[in-house]
Amino acid sequence: MIKINENYNKLQASYLFSDIAKRVTAHTEANPDQSIIRLGIGDVTRALPDACIKALHAAVDEMANDGSFHGYGPEQGYDFLREAIAKGDFQSRGADIEADEIFVSDGAKCDSGNFQEIFATDATVAIPDPVYPVYVDTNVMAGRTGEAKDGRYEGLVYLDATKENGFIPDLPKTPVDLIYLCFPNNPTGATATKAQLKAWIDYARDNKALILFDAAYEAFVQDDSLPRSIYEIEGSKEVAIEFRSFSKTAGFTGTRCAYTVVPKTCMAYTESGEKASVHALWNRRHTTKFNSVSYPVQRAAEAVFSPEGQAQVQELVSYYLKNAKYIREQMESLGYDCMGGENSPYIWIDAKGDSWELFDKLLNNTGVVCTPGAGFGKCGEGYIRISAFNSFENVQEAMSRIKDAL
Amino acid sequence: MIKINENYNKLQASYLFSDIAKRVTAHTEANPDQSIIRLGIGDVTRALPDACIKALHAAVDEMANDGSFHGYGPEQGYDFLREAIAKGDFQSRGADIEADEIFVSDGAKCDSGNFQEIFATDATVAIPDPVYPVYVDTNVMAGRTGEAKDGRYEGLVYLDATKENGFIPDLPKTPVDLIYLCFPNNPTGATATKAQLKAWIDYARDNKALILFDAAYEAFVQDDSLPRSIYEIEGSKEVAIEFRSFSKTAGFTGTRCAYTVVPKTCMAYTESGEKASVHALWNRRHTTKFNSVSYPVQRAAEAVFSPEGQAQVQELVSYYLKNAKYIREQMESLGYDCMGGENSPYIWIDAKGDSWELFDKLLNNTGVVCTPGAGFGKCGEGYIRISAFNSFENVQEAMSRIKDAL
Repeated sequence: MIKINENYNKLQASYLFSDIAKRVTAHTEANPDQSIIRLGIGDVTRALPDACIKALHAAVDEMANDGSFHGYGPEQGYDFLREAIAKGDFQSRGADIEADEIFVSDGAKCDSGNFQEIFATDATVAIPDPVYPVYVDTNVMAGRTGEAKDGRYEGLVYLDATKENGFIPDLPKTPVDLIYLCFPNNPTGATATKAQLKAWIDYARDNKALILFDAAYEAFVQDDSLPRSIYEIEGSKEVAIEFRSFSKTAGFTGTRCAYTVVPKTCMAYTESGEKASVHALWNRRHTTKFNSVSYPVQRAAEAVFSPEGQAQVQELVSYYLKNAKYIREQMESLGYDCMGGENSPYIWIDAKGDSWELFDKLLNNTGVVCTPGAGFGKCGEGYIRISAFNSFENVQEAMSRIKDAL
Repeated sequence: MIKINENYNKLQASYLFSDIAKRVTAHTEANPDQSIIRLGIGDVTRALPDACIKALHAAVDEMANDGSFHGYGPEQGYDFLREAIAKGDFQSRGADIEADEIFVSDGAKCDSGNFQEIFATDATVAIPDPVYPVYVDTNVMAGRTGEAKDGRYEGLVYLDATKENGFIPDLPKTPVDLIYLCFPNNPTGATATKAQLKAWIDYARDNKALILFDAAYEAFVQDDSLPRSIYEIEGSKEVAIEFRSFSKTAGFTGTRCAYTVVPKTCMAYTESGEKASVHALWNRRHTTKFNSVSYPVQRAAEAVFSPEGQAQVQELVSYYLKNAKYIREQMESLGYDCMGGENSPYIWIDAKGDSWELFDKLLNNTGVVCTPGAGFGKCGEGYIRISAFNSFENVQEAMSRIKDAL
């Protein structure tokens, strides 16, 4: 008899964004005349940079001829892209990352969900709260938790991010093995200073722990004193993996390309305490279960690092940050306490009450879709997240409707 | 202390195709003047069908404008593609599969590697031998095996495919829960009749087992009496999942698109014996750990089902089958016993001795790269696989060199 992975039965409710989609569909059906403005899911809305479009067309033309056709590529990604990433995203900022430490993939969601597979099932996992649901759910599926109780899974160590600690979690009070961090943070928009990250690096080194650092939003960092990569922090290369994506920088949410940095100096341990290379483990997993990213898409990602690509991406980021600034100003003018929106496309807003209630109120009265903070964890209760990913015109319209309604 | 998934330590050697690549690189460095002809890894060599190229360009143009841009798509794939697949690949052949039973993905390797995640760790797994290494390796990683001993993992039930049984494994003698099957087979090129598949379906129904059916090579079936999908067999929709790919049909190895069919009637069981929907489990896994396939690539896959696309794909398949026929004829004329090559792009050749030895002999004396059967399992020892994926000119040249050398 084929039995299921019973851990799936522990999973609470369905995936956050599916819930939102259902409520939006129901609202649209009931109110066909009201236009919906989506500031919920963090999905970009503007066209791909022209440099990427040109690279895509050129690569598609290569695929049209036997002589220039590309079949299977290296599972880890083509050297042209890995080298462009290492140089453009790390070496240029003083972080000593080599091309062969880059694993190109089809999404940071996939990587941040899959990476835990290479570690022991009994690893103690620390996860911030509020948080991107994928970190939690994938560890539940893998059997690293007990049952859910009062909105939290037994066995996980939750790292509370609250107004009191400025949305930067304190170090855990009990020993943990695997630590998820995300800065600029999704959903709070909070950023960590170099000193704050250094404390986590020191903790990981002292405890032989490993940090999975999600830097999907690094391009939004405008304050030069803030780190954009964890590898700007001394000692990180022994204890930290970094997830990156082209989704939010170059608008690749529907084009699909991301990467994970796994330094060769990064170590985990066998049961008997011997060092084991995390790079070798991930390479084995990646080459066995993945077959690389579409060739034209890798060429498009490479184009992000051209001078034109860099200028176009910067323009996109600035555009969304202008939206973010506007949203934060408007919500603050309405008396709402806000976090984020300065070095992040997300504004985390104190709902002054229940978060799904404010979500429903905004949806029903204004047609504006945000994300209820409760969907991101217990500490997200009482907040909503508004995303800056939309046109400035739509953001203005949304804020005008909200001003009228609240 | 972050401990590794110790199951990774059970994995034997490195991935088959990496080993081959290393030997080829060494040979090339030692013999820079000899041209290499690759008939090893099953990678297509001919350009994408024109219908796909046109669809890719058109979709890239959509991505170039805010108004037609596509961000995140549905994790399961766009309806336009799921509907084209259900209609074109199943309903048109009398198999009653609905669009919402199709999960679009970036590769059959990923799907066939990931699918086991939703089942219990103590499931007893039956895997053919010889076999595509991903089925075995991913179950080792998941902890469903003991240590390797004499080239086999303890705890797995191996289904021997030998000359004696015509490379169609017998039903297992001990109860199993999860069964991997692949027809047309990789690596042997063997095909199963409807009656042969029916026996497996009946076994699965009688034992509440589940079949994971890999049909990546179905387009090569020319004999109309042979099934191209397991869903042509009565009763299969309760006990079988099917993996499909555009890689070998439309040449998508470097473009990346595949899909998995999970009928809603397919059931697994909880520890207490209650039915659980495999569709619901896979949907949860797929939406949590995957974010769909690149939009332009989905449009290219859709174009495969247009009248032009279908004609162009048929032309590609016929081209490779002409190669396959030629390889088989030539090897048989040299006195080698062959399987496959008629309804399959692979020819499975009795090496009349050690399979790595014949691999090395062909590489060193002729520059032709094949795949040693031993890389596919114990029963692969004594065979080599030659792939028909190359130009007819290269295949002719390879066979001419082999004739001279052997």
